[in-house]
Amino acid sequence: MIKDIINKKRLGEELTEEEMRMIFLGYLEGSVPDYQMSSFLMAICINGMTENETFILTDLFLNSGDILDFSNIPGVKVDKHSTGGVGDKTTLVVVPIVASCGVPVIKMSGRSLGYTGGTIDKLESIPGYQVELSLDDVRKQVAEVGAVMMGQTGKLCPLDKKVYALRDASGTTDSIALIAASIMSKKIAGGADKILIDVKVGRGAFMKTEEDAKKLSDIMIQIGEHYGKETRTIISNMDAPLGVAVGNALEVKEALYILEGKGKGAFYELCVLLASTMVSMAKDISLEDAKNLVEETIASGQAYRKFLEIVAYQGGDVEGILISSHTVSVCSQQSGIVRGINALEVAKLSCMLGAGRMKKEDEIDPSVGVFLNVSVGEEVMVGDPLMTLYQKTGDKVVYDISKIFEIV
Amino acid sequence: MIKDIINKKRLGEELTEEEMRMIFLGYLEGSVPDYQMSSFLMAICINGMTENETFILTDLFLNSGDILDFSNIPGVKVDKHSTGGVGDKTTLVVVPIVASCGVPVIKMSGRSLGYTGGTIDKLESIPGYQVELSLDDVRKQVAEVGAVMMGQTGKLCPLDKKVYALRDASGTTDSIALIAASIMSKKIAGGADKILIDVKVGRGAFMKTEEDAKKLSDIMIQIGEHYGKETRTIISNMDAPLGVAVGNALEVKEALYILEGKGKGAFYELCVLLASTMVSMAKDISLEDAKNLVEETIASGQAYRKFLEIVAYQGGDVEGILISSHTVSVCSQQSGIVRGINALEVAKLSCMLGAGRMKKEDEIDPSVGVFLNVSVGEEVMVGDPLMTLYQKTGDKVVYDISKIFEIV
Repeated sequence: MIKDIINKKRLGEELTEEEMRMIFLGYLEGSVPDYQMSSFLMAICINGMTENETFILTDLFLNSGDILDFSNIPGVKVDKHSTGGVGDKTTLVVVPIVASCGVPVIKMSGRSLGYTGGTIDKLESIPGYQVELSLDDVRKQVAEVGAVMMGQTGKLCPLDKKVYALRDASGTTDSIALIAASIMSKKIAGGADKILIDVKVGRGAFMKTEEDAKKLSDIMIQIGEHYGKETRTIISNMDAPLGVAVGNALEVKEALYILEGKGKGAFYELCVLLASTMVSMAKDISLEDAKNLVEETIASGQAYRKFLEIVAYQGGDVEGILISSHTVSVCSQQSGIVRGINALEVAKLSCMLGAGRMKKEDEIDPSVGVFLNVSVGEEVMVGDPLMTLYQKTGDKVVYDISKIFEIV
Repeated sequence: MIKDIINKKRLGEELTEEEMRMIFLGYLEGSVPDYQMSSFLMAICINGMTENETFILTDLFLNSGDILDFSNIPGVKVDKHSTGGVGDKTTLVVVPIVASCGVPVIKMSGRSLGYTGGTIDKLESIPGYQVELSLDDVRKQVAEVGAVMMGQTGKLCPLDKKVYALRDASGTTDSIALIAASIMSKKIAGGADKILIDVKVGRGAFMKTEEDAKKLSDIMIQIGEHYGKETRTIISNMDAPLGVAVGNALEVKEALYILEGKGKGAFYELCVLLASTMVSMAKDISLEDAKNLVEETIASGQAYRKFLEIVAYQGGDVEGILISSHTVSVCSQQSGIVRGINALEVAKLSCMLGAGRMKKEDEIDPSVGVFLNVSVGEEVMVGDPLMTLYQKTGDKVVYDISKIFEIV
């Protein structure tokens, strides 16, 4: 009985393969309701899953839908995934760079999990941009443009998709095992030959400690090996938001700015590292050689034009991106050095503004968000702008600025 | 935000009164969906609630609806509650006994929580029996008959009612704090002057250990004191089912048998102890004097007639109780002494037969259940009947008999 399975996990016991199948496949076909799955997921968040349970779940996710095969597209396809951070728009930058280096990229992304929009939410802030593509569309586009950025297709890991939406809405996102199974099943089902995972660690990430990030990294590499797919990970910091924009359309604007070669901070560096690693894996060349290639495509404007090309091919109109004109500038009430910008608090604020989901039925407003006017280490004076809020007209949000900026 | 509150409890932190109000009152008015409340309840089950949180929740339950006042009914009203066990039909026996001793009883009960039917489910197996009474009905009936056995009125602790149904369905029943707040809020709202709680402990009870039973007992006594209501507890064993019948109509039949003075085992003894304690509290007499009174009312047939009187007054027809005629006798495949009868496994079996709920929408079949032909300590031979299953026509259940009966 389902209640027995829930109780077993509540008590921290290991489930059998049959029990795992019963509850997860029951959820997929609808006999297990949301409220049973969410209490079960919370028990997993608190009590964890064993390695074996994690493999079983990955397999259930994977086999719930189609497993794509792009072996007839020439070249080694490397997929990249970030475990999710605040202001993380690396996909929008990395995909066109890698494609410009001659490596085909089929990038499928998800919607929000946690406080901020996911890559798909960000792409949808571009008017007309089609995130749902057929497999024929994908093959055609990769042949002609070299890359796609899209949502999961309806038949890819449908079980993960259903569980993912519920986790987001029920406060049960924070589990290494669930995160690992969710990410790896999608990457494997997506038909990648090799996999690169950007594991975020810090205040604004699901993984708060290096130790947890290492654990997540290890289990994902193991899952990858289990399926014969070379998997590498990069552990990168997420104490402060990545880049300067948090909010869907704002982040697309920032990605364009980076691709134009105008910004060279930590966010730029991370994009270069990710893109170089992908190119190195795909072409089997050294990281250094790959990095030279990558930097060339940015400097030459090739990567920027590739982004525009991909967007146009998928029906998007970059000119039409709408940013809210209802802005509020938030200024510093003290002088000092910005010692920290709390990514999680920025994420919560952007969610309050409407850039994320509080419930799974909620709609995201692409035009709202937070733009940071300062970065960590900078000196500010009383009255200096710290951030700009892009709000819904007439909206009022209440937040505690001292939780966001640490100025000493 | 609701997700923050869920996360805080996931991490085992104490919630403020405002946070408790936000999530629970949000759930009552519908802005917090079932799947958020159930993940939150699971976090409480695993991480617990502090004493202060438990008091706050009791108050939220209590003040979500009417608080009844029966001070104009003469006599001290003692309410009795059992924390729930397998085959627990004590209410059906105790209420008519206490009423026969001249102590007014207003007994409100619930539906199933866990694998077996609740007292209300049992009463509803009597055709015509009305479990929903108005307050005027209650006052009139207590004046004329001396007792009522009914469901919660629609306006009593509606928040608890909603949470209770969800806990039952989502595998989140097992929390000392939630159980204490649920029970005590209902007892206090029900207008009792004094409260007696029968805390069940053992394999078939929510409390598996003496230690947990003691904890639950202590927090309930504290809550009672907080509201100025004398509260006593009795801790009683629930390793094996109580009595011989598990299933709704079957249990009513067993209660009638006991009230006729025909059965004198452990179940009878418990009923006498509970009834005597209630009479002792209400009349402020010694337990011994109360016990003499109680045994007299059984011996004289007064208690039995009182049961029939209450049922008839509430529209029930005892003659019409339907027991399934599709029976299967389960016989022993070995000889030896019955060392144990696992109450939890019997409960699961009765639930599979249709006597309990797997999901909150499920309907109970009053006519099905398990009748035990042997009790703990008895000697059996190969081929002796161990139990009789009363099933739905054509139904087949699969269970492991060695999990139910321990014969050595």
